[in-house]
Amino acid sequence: MPVTPAATPVTPVTVVGLGSMGSALAAAFLAAGHPVTVWNRSPAKAGPLVEQGAVHEPDIAAAVAASPLVVACLSRYDTTRAALAPAGGALRGRTLATLNSGSPEGARAMAEWARSLGARFLDGAVKNVPQAVGAPDTQLVYAGDRSVFEEYEPVLRVLGGDTIHLGEESDLAALYEVAVGATLLPALIGFFHGAALVTDRGRTAASMVPYSVKWLEMIASILPALADEIDSGDYARPFSSIGVFRDGMDDDLATARTAGLDGDWLDSLYGVVRRAVAEGREGQSVSALTEVLRRPGS
Amino acid sequence: MPVTPAATPVTPVTVVGLGSMGSALAAAFLAAGHPVTVWNRSPAKAGPLVEQGAVHEPDIAAAVAASPLVVACLSRYDTTRAALAPAGGALRGRTLATLNSGSPEGARAMAEWARSLGARFLDGAVKNVPQAVGAPDTQLVYAGDRSVFEEYEPVLRVLGGDTIHLGEESDLAALYEVAVGATLLPALIGFFHGAALVTDRGRTAASMVPYSVKWLEMIASILPALADEIDSGDYARPFSSIGVFRDGMDDDLATARTAGLDGDWLDSLYGVVRRAVAEGREGQSVSALTEVLRRPGS
Ligand SMILES: NC(=O)c1ccc[n+]([C@@H]2O[C@H](COP(=O)([O-])OP(=O)(O)OC[C@H]3O[C@@H](n4cnc5c(N)ncnc54)[C@H](OP(=O)(O)O)[C@@H]3O)[C@@H](O)[C@H]2O)c1
Ligand SMILES: NC(=O)c1ccc[n+]([C@@H]2O[C@H](COP(=O)([O-])OP(=O)(O)OC[C@H]3O[C@@H](n4cnc5c(N)ncnc54)[C@H](OP(=O)(O)O)[C@@H]3O)[C@@H](O)[C@H]2O)c1
Repeated sequence: MPVTPAATPVTPVTVVGLGSMGSALAAAFLAAGHPVTVWNRSPAKAGPLVEQGAVHEPDIAAAVAASPLVVACLSRYDTTRAALAPAGGALRGRTLATLNSGSPEGARAMAEWARSLGARFLDGAVKNVPQAVGAPDTQLVYAGDRSVFEEYEPVLRVLGGDTIHLGEESDLAALYEVAVGATLLPALIGFFHGAALVTDRGRTAASMVPYSVKWLEMIASILPALADEIDSGDYARPFSSIGVFRDGMDDDLATARTAGLDGDWLDSLYGVVRRAVAEGREGQSVSALTEVLRRPGS
Repeated sequence: MPVTPAATPVTPVTVVGLGSMGSALAAAFLAAGHPVTVWNRSPAKAGPLVEQGAVHEPDIAAAVAASPLVVACLSRYDTTRAALAPAGGALRGRTLATLNSGSPEGARAMAEWARSLGARFLDGAVKNVPQAVGAPDTQLVYAGDRSVFEEYEPVLRVLGGDTIHLGEESDLAALYEVAVGATLLPALIGFFHGAALVTDRGRTAASMVPYSVKWLEMIASILPALADEIDSGDYARPFSSIGVFRDGMDDDLATARTAGLDGDWLDSLYGVVRRAVAEGREGQSVSALTEVLRRPGS
């Protein structure tokens, strides 16, 4: 029996899905002293958690029945539903919290499904890597019934100190996750493009990192001003204008070509800038690209 | 006459180009007590700087002749060369520092041109917004003769406390600027896409900002590990795999479509992921996208 820290009431938790993230979640519940039952399609992944004190239940209905709180972290909503389907009856009266990534549509369908089975439901998103689960500044956002969130908040908080309820609409966590996460792949591909440029010149990608980190801090520092422009619809006092990006376009694309790099993705991003210029927005703030994105060209 | 702080020797500086950035540079030199001569194609922009103590010289050759150090900050290298052409003779023996954005090719051509006129040359990049010029943590990087950089470093440092010489090759500042800056437009368009998603649901773009800032911090925190993977070519122990991005692709694109947003740029970014998957890299770290970018598909 794991030792229970005095302040946290013991709540049995079932963790469904033991990929990188699900395993980290289960380990955090165990570390906080909660009795943890685990289930995974490939049973071998339960091994390390059993060593840490978890109970491995290979039958999904029995796994769900073991705890009032079921935390699912599979790849997607549809795989989650498929995996939980044989345990449909066992979900009645229990709380299901899904922590996978996915679309707002997927979250709404999941909520509807849980409701149809008589389960209480929260949808959440882990806004960090598995290694950071449990850290005080790791952020998790949840959406759904506030009363359910409040009941389980002390347990969920062991997954990350920055645990927030966004609102009652069941797709809000997914919506914010998609919205906020939309910078990830673009920023990474931008970084990899830069890394390809400097390594092509015999320098290391590591030599870029201090500059890139500062640069991301700079980008973060201008977001409040850009968000205010978007919320007010006033793009007339540009901090950084669409014209400045238009001016850099040819050089950026030529640099990619000269280094023999794939420039298609970059050309496509500059396509948004070109459409803004075609709409006469070149003197507006770069944040006016939001308006262009709202109206697809083709 | 401006008052000169004791520690900084007075160095006359000519600033060519008084756009947002050039004006901020001239103001910082003035604030530090250096005699500043300014030139701009549209003379009206000199007004505010003259009020701060600058001398406005509408003749470019006379403007260049006024100072041993000429700092040019026009839009591009070619416009800079065109503007300075009538002052070619006056550049002999003086130091020209170009602080515009542009390609490594452009920087090399500029260096060659300056050398042909007998000028000493530095190419630099301001890695922040005009409002931050002069701040202790504002970063400027320079490339070119180290001796020239060292001679003028005390003067240049008034533009930003984090003033660095990257190396002797004249295009290194431009190379690092393009490489590091390659995350800007992608990250901003990702943010604007997210803003379009949440505002479409009646929430403010401002409500995203705290999450987006954390998210950019998270991205910054993984860059060292990703850079090490790129430098070692070892993508086999993924922190975050290409497969995870592939799994999120359909939902991301569907969410964009459902909200009526332009998804072309996103589809094009995911095109890099699709090519990686087609190359059998789905189990590799996302940093292996660098290898895919190095070999254009079409
Ligand atoms: N890793 C991260 O950095 C991170 C960060 C934030 C959010 N997330 C999100 O967390 C979720 C899980 O990510 P992860 O990193 O843990 O992924 P992962 O390591 O690839 O694990 C995927 C999990 O889903 C299960 N699964 C997939 N398809 C299934 C199916 N048809 N039936 C039953 N089980 C199925 C897998 O079972 P098997 O073991 O049997 O294959 C495994 O447990 C994803 O939505 C991801 O976007 C991840
Ligand atoms: N603003 C920023 O946030 C920022 C940040 C980092 C780097 N930078 C870089 O700094 C450089 C200048 O940017 P900025 O923001 O100052 O741009 P800006 O406000 O648009 O000013 C452009 C300057 O270039 C001059 N110019 C353009 N074409 C010319 C030509 N053919 N002949 C003579 N002069 C010409 C303009 O003269 P007129 O006044 O006569 O038009 C003006 O002085 C760019 O390379 C930019 O990428 C800017």
